[in-house]
Amino acid sequence: LDKIIQGFRRFRNDVFPQQQAFFEELAQEQNPRAMFITCSDSRVVPELITQSEPGDLFVTRNVGNIVPPYGQMLGGVSTAIEYAVMALGVKHIIVCGHSDCGAMKAVMNPEKVEHMPTVKAWLRHAEVARTVVEHNCCGGHDALSVLTEENVVAQLDHLRTHPSVASRLASGQLFIHGWIYNVGTSQILAYDAAQGKFRPVDEEPWPMATPRARYTPEQP
Amino acid sequence: LDKIIQGFRRFRNDVFPQQQAFFEELAQEQNPRAMFITCSDSRVVPELITQSEPGDLFVTRNVGNIVPPYGQMLGGVSTAIEYAVMALGVKHIIVCGHSDCGAMKAVMNPEKVEHMPTVKAWLRHAEVARTVVEHNCCGGHDALSVLTEENVVAQLDHLRTHPSVASRLASGQLFIHGWIYNVGTSQILAYDAAQGKFRPVDEEPWPMATPRARYTPEQP
Amino acid sequence: LDKIIQGFRRFRNDVFPQQQAFFEELAQEQNPRAMFITCSDSRVVPELITQSEPGDLFVTRNVGNIVPPYGQMLGGVSTAIEYAVMALGVKHIIVCGHSDCGAMKAVMNPEKVEHMPTVKAWLRHAEVARTVVEHNCCGGHDALSVLTEENVVAQLDHLRTHPSVASRLASGQLFIHGWIYNVGTSQILAYDAAQGKFRPVDEEPWPMATPRARYTPEQP
Amino acid sequence: LDKIIQGFRRFRNDVFPQQQAFFEELAQEQNPRAMFITCSDSRVVPELITQSEPGDLFVTRNVGNIVPPYGQMLGGVSTAIEYAVMALGVKHIIVCGHSDCGAMKAVMNPEKVEHMPTVKAWLRHAEVARTVVEHNCCGGHDALSVLTEENVVAQLDHLRTHPSVASRLASGQLFIHGWIYNVGTSQILAYDAAQGKFRPVDEEPWPMATPRARYTPEQP
Amino acid sequence: LDKIIQGFRRFRNDVFPQQQAFFEELAQEQNPRAMFITCSDSRVVPELITQSEPGDLFVTRNVGNIVPPYGQMLGGVSTAIEYAVMALGVKHIIVCGHSDCGAMKAVMNPEKVEHMPTVKAWLRHAEVARTVVEHNCCGGHDALSVLTEENVVAQLDHLRTHPSVASRLASGQLFIHGWIYNVGTSQILAYDAAQGKFRPVDEEPWPMATPRARYTPEQP
Amino acid sequence: LDKIIQGFRRFRNDVFPQQQAFFEELAQEQNPRAMFITCSDSRVVPELITQSEPGDLFVTRNVGNIVPPYGQMLGGVSTAIEYAVMALGVKHIIVCGHSDCGAMKAVMNPEKVEHMPTVKAWLRHAEVARTVVEHNCCGGHDALSVLTEENVVAQLDHLRTHPSVASRLASGQLFIHGWIYNVGTSQILAYDAAQGKFRPVDEEPWPMATPRARYTPEQP
Ligand SMILES: [Zn+2]
Ligand SMILES: [Zn+2]
Ligand SMILES: [Zn+2]
Ligand SMILES: [Zn+2]
Ligand SMILES: [Zn+2]
Ligand SMILES: [Zn+2]
Repeated sequence: LDKIIQGFRRFRNDVFPQQQAFFEELAQEQNPRAMFITCSDSRVVPELITQSEPGDLFVTRNVGNIVPPYGQMLGGVSTAIEYAVMALGVKHIIVCGHSDCGAMKAVMNPEKVEHMPTVKAWLRHAEVARTVVEHNCCGGHDALSVLTEENVVAQLDHLRTHPSVASRLASGQLFIHGWIYNVGTSQILAYDAAQGKFRPVDEEPWPMATPRARYTPEQP
Repeated sequence: LDKIIQGFRRFRNDVFPQQQAFFEELAQEQNPRAMFITCSDSRVVPELITQSEPGDLFVTRNVGNIVPPYGQMLGGVSTAIEYAVMALGVKHIIVCGHSDCGAMKAVMNPEKVEHMPTVKAWLRHAEVARTVVEHNCCGGHDALSVLTEENVVAQLDHLRTHPSVASRLASGQLFIHGWIYNVGTSQILAYDAAQGKFRPVDEEPWPMATPRARYTPEQP
Repeated sequence: LDKIIQGFRRFRNDVFPQQQAFFEELAQEQNPRAMFITCSDSRVVPELITQSEPGDLFVTRNVGNIVPPYGQMLGGVSTAIEYAVMALGVKHIIVCGHSDCGAMKAVMNPEKVEHMPTVKAWLRHAEVARTVVEHNCCGGHDALSVLTEENVVAQLDHLRTHPSVASRLASGQLFIHGWIYNVGTSQILAYDAAQGKFRPVDEEPWPMATPRARYTPEQP
Repeated sequence: LDKIIQGFRRFRNDVFPQQQAFFEELAQEQNPRAMFITCSDSRVVPELITQSEPGDLFVTRNVGNIVPPYGQMLGGVSTAIEYAVMALGVKHIIVCGHSDCGAMKAVMNPEKVEHMPTVKAWLRHAEVARTVVEHNCCGGHDALSVLTEENVVAQLDHLRTHPSVASRLASGQLFIHGWIYNVGTSQILAYDAAQGKFRPVDEEPWPMATPRARYTPEQP
Repeated sequence: LDKIIQGFRRFRNDVFPQQQAFFEELAQEQNPRAMFITCSDSRVVPELITQSEPGDLFVTRNVGNIVPPYGQMLGGVSTAIEYAVMALGVKHIIVCGHSDCGAMKAVMNPEKVEHMPTVKAWLRHAEVARTVVEHNCCGGHDALSVLTEENVVAQLDHLRTHPSVASRLASGQLFIHGWIYNVGTSQILAYDAAQGKFRPVDEEPWPMATPRARYTPEQP
Repeated sequence: LDKIIQGFRRFRNDVFPQQQAFFEELAQEQNPRAMFITCSDSRVVPELITQSEPGDLFVTRNVGNIVPPYGQMLGGVSTAIEYAVMALGVKHIIVCGHSDCGAMKAVMNPEKVEHMPTVKAWLRHAEVARTVVEHNCCGGHDALSVLTEENVVAQLDHLRTHPSVASRLASGQLFIHGWIYNVGTSQILAYDAAQGKFRPVDEEPWPMATPRARYTPEQP
């Protein structure tokens, strides 16, 4: 803990004073432009890899960047989505997986989490990705990166089952994105739904995962 | 999204190259020293306020920095706790609330989330804090900060119901902390269980929320 | 009951003897070509409107032709899907709504089922359709038919969250269909995902709701 | 699918025109005389074996003709029951099992569905029947037909736990029936509660599964 | 607490020494003859009203002497039943309601427990009794005693959905009883299933609630 | 049953008449001074070991004297707590374990209840105690008594997660106690939170498990 407390003192004494006015303004209200759903892994820092500032990203993080489908048993992720879309009005939701993910390894090798019943139950939400890989794909190390991609695709599908998301997707007022961040190379791939594959996030034309809008929002 | 993509390019082109060796080493394994449970609020950036680097903090974030008690219905937070303690062996768990929290305001004014059924159901895990405040406390603006504190105390109590946590607390191998971060002043208060109140996190002697160990770990 | 028993006697005495060999063969095994998910409404008879024979259609029917998303609480519909795909190997799944549906009316006018708590809870699985219509659409009688269509679209989205379905969709081994049957005109519309709208089921080219396969099944 | 579309065309072009007036009247309202709960098995066509017409039977079908008991977790079957009794006012509910049922075979040989977790969980509602057979009965082929019978008895017991059903049984305003349909012989057996065994459905006096009414409905 | 500690001292100093040998033998094993399910109400003391000794009755008590039906969500009562029947082999299960029951009053006047959400949810298991009374019966004070009776009948029906119970009922190896204890008069009424009404528990022939066995247990 | 009916006759004919006035007064209302949560074990009779009379103790009993933590799935124990605290206003809650407890033995040897799925699931609420013992403690016979103690400590922690309890603990208006009753010796040990161990219940100063109040109740 000592190192954390020292870190906090550096923040308070060195960082904060330089942006005091910014933080004071921020204290009254948040108005984030995007929601970021990613893994709890300590190596994935959303604000760092997008060079965002406090106030920019509404963040929810869990083991495996899971989005449970909307249903009768709703928990923290579903709550964050509903709050982000309905109370804060975010325009983008990014689901971000990453390389070397412990959760994805556990999906492939369930015996690793046999003695962790809660982890095992949670990863059932990634079972769809495991099944796709198992029935359609490759073995070895490759399987891990394909699984990581399929997991992001599956969580995007789950995201679309949430009423607040579906209604804004239908009218083109919300955009959803599926990313994979590579810790060792700084690469980010994004899901291109039209091509059914992942491409570099900033390659033109930008890869889009948002389904076609079926309605035109009313004009003012 | 444009701003986020530009941010990513700055990260990849400017930040990453300066620490490439560090990131490449990190790519193989994570070994975080602490778990950080905080709100999804965009203004609370754990790595910033503790000046932590990638690889330092295992982070889970949700609306209201909630820790549901251990039970038959287990979700993302319980999974993250089990994984952090059992798979990663973290030594500290910090539950961190913050000033001006939308979730705490919703607990006080449930009509604000009447049309957000998932949010409403999730905040039932903070009902214990609301009840404590309602039966014992003050009105007005003060009520919000007392509620924010009581919510952290309640989530610490919930944290102790998780078997992986309880067994390591019993032998003094794990430490738990309850913080409140003030966005506008950079202040962090921490819960001092012995005195039953919150004090500045770096005030000597450091405020401790960890219950007394009942067992001595075996000697080697 | 008298009329039902008389009906059974007609079946046993008049219908069965004409096809006795067929029924005797059928008694050993079922090998249906498709799964049919539709409403419990007495006016929707799947075998009649597709002129199917015993052994052709694996049928599950519930109030509102709902398909709950895959998750931790799984019931009869999820069971039927898993069984149809994994044990019987069906190649097609049809989700079929219909005109004048009491469930859809209840979604629009929840006060009608206020005293039926189970019905109300179940229709939460159609909440996504209600939200889409509410945010994007029209009023009056039109709203009912748009809602009925959006409900079928939503249930197709739910269907895709089931692992057994997703893995076979990914390799093009399973096809899914979204239909609306009009009781009074005998018309059937089907969802065309490429155009984002419903068209007559037998209009060329046939409307397809199946997403693009991302894998090629292995060659023998 | 081709065969199904051809079937639909035959229905629209040949069958519908002959009964157009009937269907047009039906389009406005349903008023079924009975609810029929049976298996999803493709060989069990309720309208065929009772020679019923569209509008006659409110049908819900699932794997194993299961009726989960009323409780805190309620799904499609409970919804259909509540809707049939309270919104439609049906006077009869028939629970119909059948010969050669795959669900019953799975109850006897759970290893067959070991890799189908949803099916396995669902069949827990038939565990009571398996336990009765295991503790009290016979082996071999006979066990399957006794299990099929005990399953119907158990689901009738479950049916009685639903408030809408229980209240109308208590005053003699609703009748419940337990049937077994034999695909290969066209035989239907019905449960005779007074004798505790199954008899041919149209054997005099008709076998009755309805418990004795404890109240007399008020006179007009 | 003082009075309770004094009571314990009287037990230890006065009562225990007189039966020390009995208690020492009891310390090794329990072998109860019956299971007793009754209300938590402080006025209902099972051992007193049946003049039983320690070791005689396996007791579970909750608000309203509720027995939830067997299902996917199982709790304390279901556990106690399974343990009593399978591990201890009890031969009798008594479900005992009582006069002036607060739970029954709350079922009739739900507004009394509006601010107690857990109590309200739990009493949903008595909803079936409330519905029976509402549809078939009387008003005023009488309604409370009819409801108390109907609640016992409903909980007996729930009891029969538990596999361990059903299998032993089917072979006549277990007996179930439905009682109402009147606190002010010491009267106990028992449910006579054949007559569909409650009669004094020791009136000949004894009132029986156990359904007819359908199997004969194998001879040794 | 014969012995139970004879016992009831003794109660009605011999015991009741001597205290008829007391019972008649009691018939109107209950006003218990304490809530007693203990095991269903037939050898633990709360009223006997505290020499309490009808009307003194509000009792809930289940297998293993479990108190599930407050959460989204709430059952009988949570209901009894809410009712006791909010409707009856009890001032003390006693959680009482006991020697030779079958539930504790099953926690240590889960294979004993492998065929009792409900019991197994319920004992998950004691998993925290098992984990503490496993990680920190001793083997052999000692392990059972340590487990029994840790289970009471864990259930006290669970008790504190209930809003009604937490709010009254915070202001010192409710007291909680953790006991272990020894059937063979009549000894009762109580948990002393300050010392982190169990001591005789009537040893001065009395062992206290109630956490420090953080609020002073308002003065009248
Ligand atoms: Zn990860
Ligand atoms: Zn917040
Ligand atoms: Zn319908
Ligand atoms: Zn079947
Ligand atoms: Zn009561
Ligand atoms: Zn015990």
